[in-house]
Amino acid sequence: MTVNVRFEPDGIEAAVAASITVSEAAHEADLSLHLPCGGRGKCGKCRVTVLSGSLSEPTVEEVELLTPEELESGCRLACQARLEGDAVIEVPPEAHVIGKKALNGDLVRPVKLHPNARQIHVKLPPPSIHDQRSDFDRLDGALSQVTATLHACPAALRVLAGALREGDFEVIASIVGSRLVDVRPGSQRPRTLGVAVDIGTTTVVAYLVDLLTGRPLTTAAAYNEQGRHGADVISRIEYCGTHKDGVETLRGLVLQTINGIIAEALGKCGCRTEDLYEVTIVGNTAMNHLFMGLDPRNLAQAPYIPVTTRAHELAPAEAGIAMHPRGSVFCLPTIAGFVGADTVGVILATDMLDRGHPVLAIDIGTNGEVALWAKGKLLVASCAAGPAFEGAQIEHGMRAAPGAIEHVRLKDEGIEIQTIGGQQPTGICGSGLFDAVARVLELGVVESSGRFVDGQLPAGTSPQVAQRLVGEGNTRRFILSDPDDASPVYLSQRDVRQIQLAKGAVRAAVDLLLEMAELEPEELGEVLLAGAFGNYVDPVSALRMGMLPPVPVERIKGVGNAAGAGALLALISLEERRRAAELAAAAEHVELSRLPQFQMAFMDAMVFP
Amino acid sequence: MTVNVRFEPDGIEAAVAASITVSEAAHEADLSLHLPCGGRGKCGKCRVTVLSGSLSEPTVEEVELLTPEELESGCRLACQARLEGDAVIEVPPEAHVIGKKALNGDLVRPVKLHPNARQIHVKLPPPSIHDQRSDFDRLDGALSQVTATLHACPAALRVLAGALREGDFEVIASIVGSRLVDVRPGSQRPRTLGVAVDIGTTTVVAYLVDLLTGRPLTTAAAYNEQGRHGADVISRIEYCGTHKDGVETLRGLVLQTINGIIAEALGKCGCRTEDLYEVTIVGNTAMNHLFMGLDPRNLAQAPYIPVTTRAHELAPAEAGIAMHPRGSVFCLPTIAGFVGADTVGVILATDMLDRGHPVLAIDIGTNGEVALWAKGKLLVASCAAGPAFEGAQIEHGMRAAPGAIEHVRLKDEGIEIQTIGGQQPTGICGSGLFDAVARVLELGVVESSGRFVDGQLPAGTSPQVAQRLVGEGNTRRFILSDPDDASPVYLSQRDVRQIQLAKGAVRAAVDLLLEMAELEPEELGEVLLAGAFGNYVDPVSALRMGMLPPVPVERIKGVGNAAGAGALLALISLEERRRAAELAAAAEHVELSRLPQFQMAFMDAMVFP
Repeated sequence: MTVNVRFEPDGIEAAVAASITVSEAAHEADLSLHLPCGGRGKCGKCRVTVLSGSLSEPTVEEVELLTPEELESGCRLACQARLEGDAVIEVPPEAHVIGKKALNGDLVRPVKLHPNARQIHVKLPPPSIHDQRSDFDRLDGALSQVTATLHACPAALRVLAGALREGDFEVIASIVGSRLVDVRPGSQRPRTLGVAVDIGTTTVVAYLVDLLTGRPLTTAAAYNEQGRHGADVISRIEYCGTHKDGVETLRGLVLQTINGIIAEALGKCGCRTEDLYEVTIVGNTAMNHLFMGLDPRNLAQAPYIPVTTRAHELAPAEAGIAMHPRGSVFCLPTIAGFVGADTVGVILATDMLDRGHPVLAIDIGTNGEVALWAKGKLLVASCAAGPAFEGAQIEHGMRAAPGAIEHVRLKDEGIEIQTIGGQQPTGICGSGLFDAVARVLELGVVESSGRFVDGQLPAGTSPQVAQRLVGEGNTRRFILSDPDDASPVYLSQRDVRQIQLAKGAVRAAVDLLLEMAELEPEELGEVLLAGAFGNYVDPVSALRMGMLPPVPVERIKGVGNAAGAGALLALISLEERRRAAELAAAAEHVELSRLPQFQMAFMDAMVFP
Repeated sequence: MTVNVRFEPDGIEAAVAASITVSEAAHEADLSLHLPCGGRGKCGKCRVTVLSGSLSEPTVEEVELLTPEELESGCRLACQARLEGDAVIEVPPEAHVIGKKALNGDLVRPVKLHPNARQIHVKLPPPSIHDQRSDFDRLDGALSQVTATLHACPAALRVLAGALREGDFEVIASIVGSRLVDVRPGSQRPRTLGVAVDIGTTTVVAYLVDLLTGRPLTTAAAYNEQGRHGADVISRIEYCGTHKDGVETLRGLVLQTINGIIAEALGKCGCRTEDLYEVTIVGNTAMNHLFMGLDPRNLAQAPYIPVTTRAHELAPAEAGIAMHPRGSVFCLPTIAGFVGADTVGVILATDMLDRGHPVLAIDIGTNGEVALWAKGKLLVASCAAGPAFEGAQIEHGMRAAPGAIEHVRLKDEGIEIQTIGGQQPTGICGSGLFDAVARVLELGVVESSGRFVDGQLPAGTSPQVAQRLVGEGNTRRFILSDPDDASPVYLSQRDVRQIQLAKGAVRAAVDLLLEMAELEPEELGEVLLAGAFGNYVDPVSALRMGMLPPVPVERIKGVGNAAGAGALLALISLEERRRAAELAAAAEHVELSRLPQFQMAFMDAMVFP
C-alpha cells in the first residue's frame, strides 16, 4: 500500500510505502532529518508535529520522551512514528539536514541546518499594567531560549509596536546573527534565502538555498567579468597597479557578475531581492581582496602580504550586493596571499582533519593549492601551476567544451580518443592533456626528461603509433586525432614542457610538505582532488605523469567543487562558519620559495617517473 | 619666576610659577591629569613625555618606576617632575580627566577620559618573508594591548595597505568601539570630536567636546522644531496618531534641529562634519522614540508600553546624523514610558547611589520624574506635573525672559519683586511663581485649601498687602506688580489651582516613593533639583508650598542640567556608558496610577502645608 505524505513548511510531497517511519519517508522525499541517536528513539531530537493523518500508536520510547500534552498536540518522534495513511507533517527546521543528494554531489558531508539568518515564530504574553516591559524586552525575553541577547536594528524597532499589535502579540522575528532585522505579524515565515558564491578567477558560481529548510533551489554561473582585464590573478593585480581606480574597477566588475547570477538564480525561483538574507563568499585571496575592494598589489611582490586573511562580515551596502538591506555577507577567511578562502572551503567541506588518517588535498585552477593533514598538523602551500592544466599555453588546448579531447586510451596497437559530445576533435582539454602525456610516456614516445624521442622509437612500437610522431627537434609532436586530417590535433614538445612545469610545481609542493611532515607517500590514507580537475582527471594518468606521489590509485578521489561546498556549509551552518575560522587559523602556511631546497625539489619534480 | 609650558597634543599653553610639578602646571592650564595614587609617585600612571625644556632631576620614585630607557627618551611622572624653565610636554590622552571647570559646572563629578572613539598611534615591525602576517593582523597585534579584538570596516581595510607603506609602518588607527574605521599614515592624530545632545521637548542642547583631550569646545542650543506640532509630549504623540507618517515627520524635525546645532557648534570651532565621531543622546522616552523613529503612541495609553527602553548604538546613516560616516550614535537607555534617558542621565551624573546617604532627585520639565535612592533600592516614578511650572496655563505665565518676575520677597509691610534684567514686569516665570505662591501663603492671603481668603484678611495685614487682593470669588487675584498699573501682573485663583495640581503630582510621587522605601523625609541626606528649575527656584519657596517633603533647607541642592551632564559622561567614558545601562536596569519603576493609595496621596499632596 502506498500513502501520500506532505512535509510542511516546505510543502514537499512524496508517495511512500505505508508503515515506514516518518524519518524514512522524509528521506525518500529528499528531506533528511537529523537523528543524533541514529533513529533508536533515545534522544528525542527528531520531534515532528502531525498536522493531519493517521499514524501508529506512540511507541514505548515516545511515551517516555514526550509529555502527554505533547502527544496530545500531535508531537511525535520521526524515527518512531509510522505512517498508516495519508498525512501532513510539520518538520521543525532545526531537525533538517543537508545531504549529499540535496547539493548535487557538491557537498561532501551532511551538516545540521543552523543558518545565521532565521525566522522565529513567537507568541508573547500581552502587556498589562503589571507587566510594563517594553515591546523589545518582551520579544527578546521570549527569544532568549533560542538566541543570544538581541541587538535591534532601528528599522526593526520602527515596525515592532505595530506588528505586535496587528498580530495580537504573535509575530515572526527575522534575526540575522544577533540582530533583530524585521518583525512581521502572524505566524507565516517569509521566504528566507541564502546564496553561496564561489568566485573563481575565470568563473563565478552561485548556489541558491532555502534557509528555512536547507534545500538547494538552483545554481547560476557566469564568467568573471574581470576577465576583460586579465585572464589570471597576476594580470589582474597588475591592472590595479597600472590603473587609477583599478581596484574599484575590478570590484565593480565582479559585483556585476555576482549580482547578475544572484538575480538570475532568484528569478528562476520567482524570488525577490529582499528574500535574500545571507551570502557567503569563497575565492582565492586576490579574488577575496577585489571583492572587498582591497588593494591586492602586495600579494604579488615579496614578501606577499595580504591586507587581511580573516573572515569578514559585511553589510549588504558595504559589500555592494543586492539583497535584503539588513542581511549579511560573510567572506570566509583566507590563509595567505596565495592560499585563499577556496582552500579553506576545501579543507572544511572535505572534513580533512577528521577522516582518520593523513590526507593530502590538491585544488588546481590557475594556481595550485596543496594542503596536508598529518600528525596533528595542517600544512598548506601554494604553487604556481600556471594555466597549462586548463588548456592555456597549450597549442591545441581548449576549455572543456564539445569537441575537446577529454580522454586518450591505449587500444590494440594504437590509441583511442574520446571527445566531449562525441564530436570531431577540435582541441584538448585538461583531462585529455593528462591522458595524452601519460600515454606518450607509456608508449616511450617521450623520455623521462620530457624530450620526445629523437631517434629510434622503442622496440615493438606499432606503425599506428609511429606514424603519429612527426616533425623534428623542437617541432616534434604526437598526433592525437586522425593522422590523415589536414590539421590534426596534436601534443607538441612545447606542450609537454608546459605540463612539466605545471606538474612539477604541484609535485614539488607535495614533496616538500610531505618532507616537512616527515611522512612517506604510502602513509597517505587519501589524496583528494578538488575542483573540476578532480572530477575529470584520470587518477592513473595523474600518477603516471608523476604529478601525484606514488600511492595506490584507489586512494585518489575527486571531491568536486569542494571550495563551493565550503561556502555552502558556511551558509547553512554557523558551526561550520566557526570551524572555517578555526581551520584557517590552525593552518600553517609554508612559503615554498623561502625553503633552500625548493629549487632542487622543483627540478626533481619536473622529471617524469 | 614664571615659565611657559605647552601641553601637546592640545597645544594648551600656560604661564606658571617655576618649580611647580607638571601635574600642578597642567591643573593651572585647566588640563586635569588622572593621579590614581594622589600624586605620591607610587602608581606610575601619570607618565608624560618631555618634548623639550628643562625639568628637575628624576626623583627616587621616578628612578624606581621608570626604566633607564624610558627616562632617556624623556618619560617622566607628572606628579614628580618639576619645571625649571620653559617646556613642551606631551600628555597621553589616557591620563586626562574631565573636571567640573571644564564643563561649565554642568557636570557634577570628574571622570577619567575613555571615549568610544580613539586615535591610536602605532609603529609596526615591517613584514618580511619570515613574518608574513596580513596588514590587518599586524595592526591588530600591535593594538591588542590597548583594545579588544578589532573588527575592520571595509573602508578602513581599503586604505590600510597604502597607509602602512606610505607611513613606513607608522600609522594612526581610528577606532570606534571595537571597529577599525580608518587608518592614516604618520603620527598626527586627526581631530576627534564628540557631541552630547540633550533633546528637551522644548529646547535641544548640544555640547561639543574634543575627545582627544576631553575638553569642551562649545555649546549650541535651539528650540525643538517639533514644537510646531505640539508644545508637549502628549500633543506630539497625538500628532503621530492622527497623521500618516507623523513619526517620520517629527523624526525629521528633531534631526533638523540636532543637525543644525551640531553644524553650528562645529562651525564655531572651525571643525568639519567628518571630525565628529561620537554622538550621545538623552531625552525623555517620547523624545528618544521620535529620535529613533519609533512609534510613541503606546506610551500615551495604558499600559504605557515603550517600544524599547534599552541603550541603542546606531550607525550615523541609521540615526540620520551628519558626522563621520563610520562614527557612532549612542542613545542612553530609558526606564519606562515616562521615565526617560534624561532621568538616567540625572542619576548617572549626580552619582546618586554613591553619595553615602538616601537621596531624592527631582527633574521637572513638562513632566516630572522623581528618583529615590534608599536602602539599596533605586525607585523611580513619573508624575504629570503639567506645564504650569514653566508658566503655561498661568494667566500671566511666561518663559524666563527679560521682564519676567523671577523672585517675590516680603519687604517691610509689603512685597518686593525682582524681574529678569530689572525691566518693567510683563509676566511671571517658574521661579517667580514658586515665590509668589509661597508669599501669598505666608501672608495668609491664600488658605491651605488653595482658596483665596474670601472675607477677612488675617489680623495685622498691612494696607499695602490688602490693596493687592482684588476681585471676587473665582476672579480673586493678588497683584504682584504696581497695583496702580493699568494692567498689572497678578496671581489668580485659577493660577493657584494649576500650581496645586502640579506640585501635588510631584509631592504625591515623592510621598509614595518614600512610603514604599519606608523612609521618613528627615532621613533624606539630600534633595537634588535637576534642570533649570533646580538652578533658579528658591528652596525655601518650594518647601513652603509643600512641593518638597519637610527637610532642612540646606539639604536641597540645584544640580543644573544633570541630564545633559549624563549624556556628556557617556560621551567621554565607556565606563559611564556601561554604568548608565546598569543604573537603568537596576531602577525599579513604580507606576503610580496603579497604586490603590495614589488618588488619596494626590489629594493630600495638593493641600498647602
